[in-house]
Amino acid sequence: MNKIITIGREFGSGGREIGRRLAEELQIAYYDHEIVLELVKRTNFTEAYIQQIQEKQPIPIFPITIGRTFSPQINPIMEQRNSVFIDQSNIIKEIAEKSDCVIVGRCADYVLRKKEPLRLFLYANMDFKMARCREKGNEGECLTDKELKQQILAIDKGRSKYYQFYTDQRWGDKSNYDLCINTSFIDLKKLVSVLSQMIEKYP
Amino acid sequence: MNKIITIGREFGSGGREIGRRLAEELQIAYYDHEIVLELVKRTNFTEAYIQQIQEKQPIPIFPITIGRTFSPQINPIMEQRNSVFIDQSNIIKEIAEKSDCVIVGRCADYVLRKKEPLRLFLYANMDFKMARCREKGNEGECLTDKELKQQILAIDKGRSKYYQFYTDQRWGDKSNYDLCINTSFIDLKKLVSVLSQMIEKYP
Repeated sequence: MNKIITIGREFGSGGREIGRRLAEELQIAYYDHEIVLELVKRTNFTEAYIQQIQEKQPIPIFPITIGRTFSPQINPIMEQRNSVFIDQSNIIKEIAEKSDCVIVGRCADYVLRKKEPLRLFLYANMDFKMARCREKGNEGECLTDKELKQQILAIDKGRSKYYQFYTDQRWGDKSNYDLCINTSFIDLKKLVSVLSQMIEKYP
Repeated sequence: MNKIITIGREFGSGGREIGRRLAEELQIAYYDHEIVLELVKRTNFTEAYIQQIQEKQPIPIFPITIGRTFSPQINPIMEQRNSVFIDQSNIIKEIAEKSDCVIVGRCADYVLRKKEPLRLFLYANMDFKMARCREKGNEGECLTDKELKQQILAIDKGRSKYYQFYTDQRWGDKSNYDLCINTSFIDLKKLVSVLSQMIEKYP
């Protein structure tokens, strides 16, 4: 069975960089945004639309009772979201069949649960995440500290709701992962070097 | 500064064994029950009494208001507990000054926070913990599965309350640790070998 490493991560904790470096170090495939690009190919949706529906909280629609008859209302947006999630899950399963790999986000730990992936979750304290966002420059360039903190919390809230909705599990709850790593106090390159050794020995 | 590794652990997750093996592998000091023995020497309390007060939930006493005067009631049991906690914390600080070491439990991650220890938390799923308790034989020999599960939950509840009371932090909440490790799916000896390499490289 292929060695699959899934990475859940708080925004600003360095999850994407760690995933990419880890795949390089282990010389295995790396999937993150590549999954969205594959979804674009397979659906009629644009990249921007797919990202948007993945970042917003899915809102289920409940049946409306008319007299004693249940008339389930179809919500086209929700249908679309679910269909994108199913397509995405199929892509993730195909990827996992191909070779050893690192997959970032997208509920991959849950989607691939039967393959027993090594499930990492990366987190950090708020000061670290804010400093990292400022350093990377792509987020919060013109934001006050308060605004940046709110933005980070909002992104993580979106990830949490998305994960909870599709997996019925709590995002970031350690019982859903094999290793939870606080990235606040360690150089990321050093962490990757240590992690890759650890992973090679993992069952 | 000495390298200090603190281990918080759910009951039955293998924390004590991992701590002991880790100290052996790293050839550094290991402290667990040794701290209780030192407490016995320094106080008038028996080993059994110290263990009992550490495992039960500390119950604070609140001031009773008489008219407009606050008359703080002194609770001798609580006073004793606090005094044991202070003595224990002093022992832990002395230990950490002496040499590199592994310290299991006893809020050591919090007591030594200024020394920036590497804070591990070990956890596992209930099936693993129950199987391990039965295998070790010292707990739950004559218990049904339901009773054993209740016992495990009760011990962890005691640990959680004790930690929360003295640290004002949530026990097992990943934000209070550097690494949280699910021990359910890995051979403990293998985990120790991997962890010791990881720790040698940690900052």
